[in-house]
Amino acid sequence: MQLEITKIDKIMPAVILVAPQMGENIGAAARAMLNFGLTQMRIVAPRDGWPNQKAIDMAAGAFETIAPPQIFETLAGALHDLQVVYATTARPREMIKPVFTPRAAAQDAITHEQNGAKIGFVFGAERTGLTNAEIAQCHNIITAPLNPDFSSLNLAQAVLLIGYEYFIARDTTAALKLEHGKSEIAPHADLEQFLSRLEKQLDEKGFFRSEDLKPTVQRNIRALFTRSLPSEQEIRTLQGILTALTQK
Amino acid sequence: MQLEITKIDKIMPAVILVAPQMGENIGAAARAMLNFGLTQMRIVAPRDGWPNQKAIDMAAGAFETIAPPQIFETLAGALHDLQVVYATTARPREMIKPVFTPRAAAQDAITHEQNGAKIGFVFGAERTGLTNAEIAQCHNIITAPLNPDFSSLNLAQAVLLIGYEYFIARDTTAALKLEHGKSEIAPHADLEQFLSRLEKQLDEKGFFRSEDLKPTVQRNIRALFTRSLPSEQEIRTLQGILTALTQK
Repeated sequence: MQLEITKIDKIMPAVILVAPQMGENIGAAARAMLNFGLTQMRIVAPRDGWPNQKAIDMAAGAFETIAPPQIFETLAGALHDLQVVYATTARPREMIKPVFTPRAAAQDAITHEQNGAKIGFVFGAERTGLTNAEIAQCHNIITAPLNPDFSSLNLAQAVLLIGYEYFIARDTTAALKLEHGKSEIAPHADLEQFLSRLEKQLDEKGFFRSEDLKPTVQRNIRALFTRSLPSEQEIRTLQGILTALTQK
Repeated sequence: MQLEITKIDKIMPAVILVAPQMGENIGAAARAMLNFGLTQMRIVAPRDGWPNQKAIDMAAGAFETIAPPQIFETLAGALHDLQVVYATTARPREMIKPVFTPRAAAQDAITHEQNGAKIGFVFGAERTGLTNAEIAQCHNIITAPLNPDFSSLNLAQAVLLIGYEYFIARDTTAALKLEHGKSEIAPHADLEQFLSRLEKQLDEKGFFRSEDLKPTVQRNIRALFTRSLPSEQEIRTLQGILTALTQK
C-alpha cells in the first residue's frame, strides 16, 4: 500500500494487448491495470480501431489516469523500445523459451528493471491468444497455474493476475495486521489487572470447586483472554461486564 | 499443476456470496472459482432468487462441475458448519480483527485445513461489500493490496484473487522452466563439438586477427552460445548453419 506509483512511472512496464476484439475487454484491462498502478498500455491492431467508446465506458475512469494508449500496427512496432518482454500463454508451445509463473515473472521483471531495463507484458486476442509467431518475438513466457480441467481466464483477468503479482512483488503491505481501530492493544498490566480481579471474584463466588484443579482452570481462563490480544477499550468493556455481573 | 483436486474436495473451502445482485456476477464468480479448483459455492439471499439463468449463461460451464450452490437466507446460516471464516473487504473497518493479505490468508487457511478445520471465504454484494455486522460474524479479514488511488475490483475478480492465492499456496508448478518442446537440452559434449568446429572454421578463415585477443574472443563466443542452453535439435541446426556458410 506504500507503493509510490509516481516514482516508478518512469520504468513502468508496458501492457501490450495484441489484436483485442471487444472494446469492453480493453476497458476492463485498463481498469485491471490501474488497480495495480500499471499505466502504460499499448494496443496492436485493435479490431474496432481507437478510440473506442465501449472501452472507455467499461474502464470505470481508468483511461483518465493511465497514459493515453499507444496504438501500433504490428507487435514488432509495439515492442520496439522494450528490452525484456513476457508473452502470456494459457498452454505450452513447441518453443524453447523460459516459462515463468506470474509470481516468478514479476520477480524477474523487477530484477531487470533494477538493472534499468524496460519491460513489457504481452496479451493475445480473446479466445485465440498469441500466435507462435508473436510469442517468438518475446523473450519469455508466462503461464499461470490453473485448474487443468477448467482454465477460463478472460483478457482482463489475465491482466489482473500479472498486474497483481507485479504490484505485490513491490508492495510492502504487512501480510497480517491486527486492526485495532482507534484503540491500541492493551498493555500487559491492564490485562493482568482484569484477570486478577476476575479470579478474585470467581474465588469469592466459589467457582473453583477444587483447590487441586484451580491452577489449571485459571490458566485456561487466562489463555482464552490473552490470545485475543484485547485492546485497552476491550479491557474497559470486560471490567464493565465484571462489575455488572457481580452487582448485588 | 500437480494438484489433485478430488483429494482436497472433502475439505475444500466454501466461497460465500452475500446478497449478490446480478446473476452474471454469480456466474463469473463460479467460473473464477473453478479456474482454481474451488467447487463449494454458497449464496446468501440472492436478489433474483435461484436458479438464475444469467448466472448459468455467464459461467462458461462451471456450474456443471462445481457442487450445486447452496442457498441460505442469512449469513449465519451459510457459516453454520464452518470453523475459520475470512471476510473480504476493500477498506479498513473499525473492528478488531486480524487483517490478512490474500497470500497470507491462503497460507493461514491451509494451515487450519491441515488441522482439519473447514474454511470459508465471504464476499459482499456488488458496490456495497460486506456490512460491519456481517464482518463481525467472521474470524478474519482479507484486504488485497491495491492502488490506493484506484481500487476497482468486481466480485468475480475478488473471488479470482483469493482463489488464485489459495491454489498457488497448494501448487507445485515450477516457478520457472525452460520449455524445450520435444528436444532435450544438449549434453555438454554436443555443444563443445559444435564450438570447437566453429572455432576451427573461424581460425581457417582468419577471423581471429590477433593471437593475443583470440582467447577473449573465443570466450565471448562460447558465452553467447552456452547461456542459451541450446537443445540437441538446436545444436544440429547450428551445425547445419556452419556447414552451409562454409560451403565452397
